[in-house]
Formats: sequence, C-alpha cells, structure tokens
Amino acid sequence: MTHYAAPVEEMRFVLEHVADFASVRALPGCGDVTSDLVTAILEQAGRFGTDVLAPINQNGDTKGAVFDAGGVRTPEGFAEAYRQFVEGEWNGLPFAAEFGGQNLPWVLHTAVQEIWHAANMSFGLCPMLTQGAIDLLLAHASPEQKNLFLPRLVSGEWTGTMNLTESQAGSDLSRIRTRALPVAGASGTYRLIGQKIFITYGEHDMAENIIHLVLARLPETPPGVRGISLFIVPKFLVAADGTLARRNDVWCSSLEHKLGIRASPTAAMSLGDDDGAVGYLVGEAHHGLEYMFTMMNNARLAVGLEGVAIAERAYQQARAYARERIQGRSLRSGSGSEAVPIIHHPDIRRMLMTMKALIEAARGLAYYTAAWIDIARRHPVPSVRAEADSRVALLTPIVKAWSTDIGMEVANLGIQVHGGTGFIETTGAAQHLRDARIAAIYEGTNGIQANDLVSRKVLRDGGAGARLMIAEMNAALSAPAEKTLPPLRAGLRDALAALARATDWLVETKDPVAAQAGAVPYLHLFGLTLGGFMFARAVRAMKGLRAAGGNGAFLSAKVVTARFYAERLLPQTTSLLAAVMAGAESVMALPEEDF
Amino acid sequence: MTHYAAPVEEMRFVLEHVADFASVRALPGCGDVTSDLVTAILEQAGRFGTDVLAPINQNGDTKGAVFDAGGVRTPEGFAEAYRQFVEGEWNGLPFAAEFGGQNLPWVLHTAVQEIWHAANMSFGLCPMLTQGAIDLLLAHASPEQKNLFLPRLVSGEWTGTMNLTESQAGSDLSRIRTRALPVAGASGTYRLIGQKIFITYGEHDMAENIIHLVLARLPETPPGVRGISLFIVPKFLVAADGTLARRNDVWCSSLEHKLGIRASPTAAMSLGDDDGAVGYLVGEAHHGLEYMFTMMNNARLAVGLEGVAIAERAYQQARAYARERIQGRSLRSGSGSEAVPIIHHPDIRRMLMTMKALIEAARGLAYYTAAWIDIARRHPVPSVRAEADSRVALLTPIVKAWSTDIGMEVANLGIQVHGGTGFIETTGAAQHLRDARIAAIYEGTNGIQANDLVSRKVLRDGGAGARLMIAEMNAALSAPAEKTLPPLRAGLRDALAALARATDWLVETKDPVAAQAGAVPYLHLFGLTLGGFMFARAVRAMKGLRAAGGNGAFLSAKVVTARFYAERLLPQTTSLLAAVMAGAESVMALPEEDF
Repeated sequence: MTHYAAPVEEMRFVLEHVADFASVRALPGCGDVTSDLVTAILEQAGRFGTDVLAPINQNGDTKGAVFDAGGVRTPEGFAEAYRQFVEGEWNGLPFAAEFGGQNLPWVLHTAVQEIWHAANMSFGLCPMLTQGAIDLLLAHASPEQKNLFLPRLVSGEWTGTMNLTESQAGSDLSRIRTRALPVAGASGTYRLIGQKIFITYGEHDMAENIIHLVLARLPETPPGVRGISLFIVPKFLVAADGTLARRNDVWCSSLEHKLGIRASPTAAMSLGDDDGAVGYLVGEAHHGLEYMFTMMNNARLAVGLEGVAIAERAYQQARAYARERIQGRSLRSGSGSEAVPIIHHPDIRRMLMTMKALIEAARGLAYYTAAWIDIARRHPVPSVRAEADSRVALLTPIVKAWSTDIGMEVANLGIQVHGGTGFIETTGAAQHLRDARIAAIYEGTNGIQANDLVSRKVLRDGGAGARLMIAEMNAALSAPAEKTLPPLRAGLRDALAALARATDWLVETKDPVAAQAGAVPYLHLFGLTLGGFMFARAVRAMKGLRAAGGNGAFLSAKVVTARFYAERLLPQTTSLLAAVMAGAESVMALPEEDF
Repeated sequence: MTHYAAPVEEMRFVLEHVADFASVRALPGCGDVTSDLVTAILEQAGRFGTDVLAPINQNGDTKGAVFDAGGVRTPEGFAEAYRQFVEGEWNGLPFAAEFGGQNLPWVLHTAVQEIWHAANMSFGLCPMLTQGAIDLLLAHASPEQKNLFLPRLVSGEWTGTMNLTESQAGSDLSRIRTRALPVAGASGTYRLIGQKIFITYGEHDMAENIIHLVLARLPETPPGVRGISLFIVPKFLVAADGTLARRNDVWCSSLEHKLGIRASPTAAMSLGDDDGAVGYLVGEAHHGLEYMFTMMNNARLAVGLEGVAIAERAYQQARAYARERIQGRSLRSGSGSEAVPIIHHPDIRRMLMTMKALIEAARGLAYYTAAWIDIARRHPVPSVRAEADSRVALLTPIVKAWSTDIGMEVANLGIQVHGGTGFIETTGAAQHLRDARIAAIYEGTNGIQANDLVSRKVLRDGGAGARLMIAEMNAALSAPAEKTLPPLRAGLRDALAALARATDWLVETKDPVAAQAGAVPYLHLFGLTLGGFMFARAVRAMKGLRAAGGNGAFLSAKVVTARFYAERLLPQTTSLLAAVMAGAESVMALPEEDF
C-alpha cells in the first residue's frame, strides 16, 4: 500500500493564481465560493482520498474486478468506499441544484476530481462515467427523462456508462451496427440488439442501477455517422414513480484482462439476447454522435486530468523513495563520507524536477481550461460565453493528450527513480504506469486529439483561435520585470515564436495530410508552450503573495520549478517545430508493403 | 500468440554495410565467415526464434515462473526449448573453440542474440547471463577453474548467474555484506553466508547445474568497494572429473512478482543457511568489483540489444495490426469512400516510421559497437586493439541506455498503434512494454550509464575519445554527393555541431554536479547523433548495391527511413543541447524537504 496526500496548498495556489478563480467567483451563482470554502472542500476531499480511496488502490489492482455466474464483483472495499462517496455527496458537486447537485464551479470540481483519480484511478472512473452521462442528459434529454434519471445519477445512487465502441467500431464510430427497433405504440421506446465492448463500469456491484447511454442505428438509416442515434438503456427499468422495475435485456458477457485500471470492470455488453433491450431515444433520431460530442469536451478534460493525477501519485511515491533510499556518496562531500539518500544525486533530482515541473504545468492547464468551462456556462454575456466555448474547444484536445502523455512519462520516471525495486509489482510504482497507459488511448486516442486540434480547432477558423491564445500568452512577456523570471521569459518567448511559426505553416500549407503528419508534434509544442504560460501566471503572483506573508518555501519552490521548466523542458519546442515543418513526405513515402 | 520473423535482410545489411563486416572478416580467425555463412546462420536462428521461442513467449508471460516446495519451474515449453537451444549449439557461438565454442565474431553473435531477445526476452536472459559468466571466467579464472566450468557453460548444459545485488546494495555495490570465510586447509575455498536479491535465473529447471558468480567480503576487509571479492558458487559441487557431487548450500528463497519478463525467474538467494555455501575465489582477493566490470561492457551491450530486439518485436506486431485493422477513411480519397486499413492514416504512419527509424538507428549502433569488440579482441596490432577498446568503452553506455529507452518508446508506440486493443493483455502488445521496462534499469540504470559516459568516458580523457568519434562522424559529411542524402547530411551536420558544443561545455565546465545533471540529455544527444551516422553509413552503400542489382524496395525504404530520421528525430539534438547547457542550478536548487 502506498500513501497519497492531496497537494492542497498547490491546488489552492493553482486555482487562485493560475486558473484565476477570482474571475470564476464573479460569475452568477459562484459568489459564495470563498477561499475558505475552497480550502475546506479540498481538505475534506483530500482526507477521503487518503483514508478511503488510496488504501484500496493496490489491492484493487492485484485482485481486479471479477466476472462469474454471480455477476461482476469489484475488489474488496470498492462498494463500501462508493457508498461513503455517495453519502458524502461528492458525486453531485458540480451539478445543478435542481437535480440535487451542489452547483459548485467546474474548476473546483476539477481539483476535487484530481484527488479521486490520484488516490484510486480505477475507482474514480465510476463517477467520471456517471458525470459524462449526466452532462449528456442535461444537454439533450427530455424533461421527463431528466426528472426520471438525473436525481439519482447526480446523487450517485445510480451510475452511468457510455456504450459506444463495438469490435469493428472503435475510433471510427460510423461503423456501429447495434440496431434499435421501434416498439409499436410506445413512442420513443425501442428494442436494442447488438454487442458493445470496452464499456467502463458496464456492470458492477456498487450501485443499484446502471444507466447505459447507447449508440445504435434505427432501421433503414444511411450508413456512416448520420444514421446513429442515442438511447437510454437502464439495467433495471424504472417505473414512472422512480422505483425499479424488471431487469432489462442488457448483460455483461465478459470482462477484459487489462494492462492497468484492473479494479475497474471493462465489460463486453450484450444487448437483446432475449427480447431486445428496452431503450429510450434521447433527443432526435440520427443525432446520436452529435450529442455524444457535446459532452466530449468535459470527458476529455477529465481524462487529461487523470494524466495529471496519476503523475502526482507517481511523483509522491518516487519522492518518498528518493528521500529514504540510501545509496552512493554525495558528489559535493569528500570521498569516504557516508552514503546518502538518493535524492542528493543530480540525476535523481533531474527526474524528480522533471516530474514536478510537468505535473505543475499540466495541472495549471487543466484547471485553467476548467475555469473557461465555468465562464462558458455561466457568464451573463452570450458573446463572452461563445468566446469561452471556443477557448475550451481549442484547449481540450491539448489537455487530454498532452497531460496523458505526461502521465505516462512521469509514471515511467517514477519507476526509474526506484531502480530495480520499481520493477517489482509489490512496490506499487509499476501500477501507476500501467494505469496511466489507458488515458492516452480512451476517449479518443491522443493521435485523434491531435488531429482534432489541427483540423477542427486550428485550420477550420484559419488559425484565428490559436493566434488569439498565442497573443494572450505573448502579452505575459511584457509583464513588469518584478513579475517575471528572466529565464522563463526567454524560454517562453522562444516557445511562442515556434508555436506561432508552426501555426502559420499549418494554415498556409493547406495540406490535410501534412497537417495530420505534424499533428502530434504540434500538439506537444502547443502544450509545452501553454505550460510555460501557466508558470508565467504563477510567477506573476509571487511578489504580492510574498508581501502578504505567503509560505516562502512553497513560493521559492515554484520559482525553481518554473526555471527548471524553462531551461530544461521548454527548449523541446524547437525540435517539435522542426518535426511539424518537416511535412508529410517522409511520413507517407513508404509503400505499405515496405514497412 | 503473436508472430515474430527475424528481419534477416535488414540484419545482413547492417552487418555488412553499417557495422562493416569486411573489417571483421579481415581479423585473425574470421576469414571464413563468408556472407553465405552469415546468411545461413541468421536464417537458421530466425527459424528457431519463430518456431520455438516466439510461440511460448505469451504463455510464459501469463503463467510466469513459479516457486514452490518443488523448486522453481519455468513455464511450459521453456525447458524443452532450452534443450533444443543447447542441442543446436547456439550457446557457444562466440566463444573460444578451446572450450567447445564456435569462435564466431561477436558482431555476428550480436545479430543472433537479437533474435533470441526479440522472440522471447524472458528466455534470452538465461543464455545472456551464462554468457556474462563465461566472459568473466575467461578473463579471470584459473586454468583449473576454466577447465572445470567453462566447457559445460559454453555448451549451455550448465547456466551462469551474477549474484551482485543485496537489498541494501543495488546501484551502490560497496554496501555488499555477504561474507566469505576461508576454509582451513583448502586454499582458495571459502564458505559464503549472505542474502542476494534480483538474481536472474538464480534457480530454474532448465539445466542440471547453475554456476553462480558471487560478490562477497572476506573477513576483516576495509568497507567500500576495495573489500569485495568474487567467488564461483556452483549449485551442485563439481568433482575434479566434472561429475556432479553434493548440493551446495545456496538456495532460492523466493521469486519476485515483476512488471515484465515474468517467465524468467528473478530469485532471492540465500547462501549459507546451513553450513555455508562452498565458493572458490576467482583471481585475487579484493578485486571482485574490478573483475565484474571487465565483463560489464559485453553485458551492457547485450542489454542495449534487448532494447533493439523488443522494439523490433513491438514494431512487427504494430505493423501487422495497422495493415489489417480497418477504421476511418483515407484522407487522400474523397468522402463516402470505403474505410481503409489504419496504416493509411498519417499519424499511424508517423508512429510506425518513428519505430522503424529508431530501431534501425539503434541496431546499427549496437552492431557497429559489437564489431569494435571483435577488433579489440582479435586485431594483431596492440595499439589498434587499445583504440578499439576505448571506442567500445565510449559507446557501450550509449548502446545500453539509448537503445533501452528506445525499446520502451517503441513498445509504447506499439500499444498506441493498437488503440484500445493494445491495452488488453491478450493482444500481446502490452507485454512488450512491460518486458522492455527492465532493460533501462538492470545492468546499471540508464542514469548510471549516463554518469559513466560523462564522467569516465568523456571527462576523464578531457573529451579526447568523444572528439575522435565526432571527427569520424564529421568525415561522413564530406562523402561525395552521390553517397549522401541531403536532408540527412544537413541534419547530421547540425547534430554533430550540437554534440561537439555539448562536449566542449562539459569539458570546460569542470563541475561534476553539472556534468551529472546533464548526463542523460548528453547521452541521448550522443545516441541520436550516432544514429544519424549509422544512417549515413547505410546511405553510403546504396549506389553500389543498386548497381549490383540489390533489392530496390529494401534500399528505397532505407533511404526513406534515413530521411524521416533526419527530419523528424535528429532535430531533438538541439533541445538536448539546451538541456545539457542549462547546468545544475535549477536541478539542485530545491531543498530536499521542498520537493
């Protein structure tokens, strides 16, 4: 069992000074979210993470979720932890009071969710999927559907799933084959028949009902994405008064044996083995994929956050080991001196600093993006909401892909800090890498995120949104000297020049193949630069905080980390620019058979 | 079960044109290793890998090695495969005929060993450890010891181990506590008492005897590295006539549950639970670590090769999936067209090309280095041998660390090419990442390799050896135009300038802390540049091979890959230079408690 403690001071700092919580507090309905309330919530969530979720993480991985004649059983402690989670009203934190939620800002929810993911990524997936289902129903369900399903999804008594993937339809959802046949005389009701795979928490023993959101085709629809509709398929049908009725014809047929997140059941689902699974059409027919994509931003942000969270967990474990493991002499004392903890060795520090710097950059970006979600949802002025929406759309694929790549990189470094011990499963360091690995794949692979960024978020508006973001970052360069750090200013200036040049190149090249061939390096270039901007925002706040008697050690550490990021990591932007501008030729030249 | 086929054409090409097999063939005892013989050996080894070793790889991972009252059992098929391996006389390929070996060049052995590692890394570890033991005994054992132990180690009837690590002595072997007490009246014989951990193939059921090479301390020796001696501790004692006598007091006490290489038993060993394990001193007392390091170069090269091999395996699997998985439309055909294999998509190609280019660069470097080992061992002129020795010493940490980092990167990309399927263990792609992970840790972590490179291989001679290598690479830039590729020439020129500057900086800075803080980026910078040089050597051979009617598709693919490497990967050298020259300040500034 490895320890986890929520980095509450860092989270508060990032919320207030990087994500600019003040602007969130100014939004309607957010005025009473005081700094003290934020602290209280983070500390309480931190205790829940430390005391309840983290202790069952490793055993959950070892035992895994099990499927047999009795159904799906999550590992010991999961059902009880989930009961406490619901009882503590954690599930409804960001949702509308109308359905029993607490209506707190999304950015605060984001910080809290980081704690769930870090303490126990397998556990955190369950509320994460429910959150996706809630978002989707809030946006597209009928008032009756909302009243029937949302209160108990918001409370967490019921959980939600996304039934998208089929074996022939993964990244390419146009290939979905599950059919939905209208039930005569029952408008809006269908019988669904098909097979779904990779359904996270598709079946489990933690809640009394599971609300599946299922993509399927109506009869005689055109092939491709236009023929796909979205349905609510509850595990147990729900009577009009909200009581549970008969078991629906939707069944788990097997669980996957996965590299990581093993405590979370990943189910193959069979719909309609018997008389067809009863499903209720959401919104209009043929708009299923479109609806699914409206909630994708939040889900992708949540997955990006998993990258931050698992990285934090891996960092905490590596840091503890580096402080305690005695091995080798210090370079700075004479020979013959005592052996020292390995945290004294420069290369161990290089790894820990890399981990720390990447985490803080990615956390800043995730919270910053979440604050824009609040503005997009709550700001009274429509044009500001629209602007915020564009900003969220631009940043979301970066948060998702860059942060999850960081999750793997940091978890990998965490193993390396441990040396041979890191390769032994009982240590727990390897689990973080195994868990982190999925986040770069699901909710749209990181390659798909990069194509989304380049094609839909940059090229579609001729680079306007990207250039707006770049201009805003450039403005940070002209902050007064006492609010900047010279190496960071220099590093960010170069990174911004590279990002601007890569953006211009993509826009001017007008070749979709070249754009996609350069998409992943472009996304990394954008992410690294944004990370530098997040540190610039942090540094800007320093002087005031020091004057106000802030925690000097914390603030100094932030400055050291910013400098490390600027000197060691930001220069990667130069190489990434070269990779983008290399274009598609050498990527595409090889005939398929000559690979 | 996933397929593996040895890339024989590529291996032959790299041997002949990158590693310059002609210069090896000119060495004493190598004249009859014709091109046809090389091909025959590679093809035969390839068949053994494909037919015998690869088919038991995945089941070996799933079942793992097991330890119980009956001892250690390797997974189904391993013992039988090893029997065939010994019978096929594969084990003695590079060793002296005097002890039953075939005396073939080390560079050819390296290519063959790549096949074992790629087909089944867990299996390949057993002969790899035996090889280390043989090298050590060849260099330091007495004639009697050699005659007693080497013939059956060379044949593979007996296997070898390295008993170095103890729980408090990992990277820092000076902390070893295992004791060796002289046996009165039996000169050179000792009783060993202690506990060792992480002993690869420390116990197993594949051979009738296991020869442990054990580091231990004589009584009343000074602390630190000077007090450590090396002992031969056979599992079964061996009578003077070579027959097996009684069981020695050296026992497996447990096996580790590891992230990867699960079929290979990693044992905790207990010496002297009863009356002390009988051990025979090798060479002189107190020189144990020194002896161990003389065989380290070969062992480190072999581990680097594991990186190449597992990357090749991951690449083959990803390539097969990318050709067969249908998903999405081609960007280059109109909309509404048929879905295509994902190998058509630019980002999938980016990943496959990255994998292919890194593998070919790292393979080139590994074989190139192995050819220098042959020169160092066999060249008639002592000064040439000494020069070759220095070259091997310089390149070895780079082969070890850079190639094993590539092993992980490529295996990780291999999962990503598979999308969600890659995360499912039955697919087999995840195993490659889990297997690859250890190679960056054992035989000296990659951080230790980087420190070795910087401190002992670059700074100790004031940069002379490194500059000699750089000069040799620079000479490739002035090859006639028809023997170069302009983008590669340009990329290599910039990379060489960065490497020269980083080398000068390290030499001039004279700060060991700064050197170690920059060691890993420096090693990567060196590796990437050497990779470019390997492609330059490949390109140089093109014109002649085309004129001689070589395989046009293969040669064209090599040129495309070289260009991809130059345009997409070599530019990383710029960022690495910046990281090196950032120095130690931001790495070391944070007080330990503020991490």
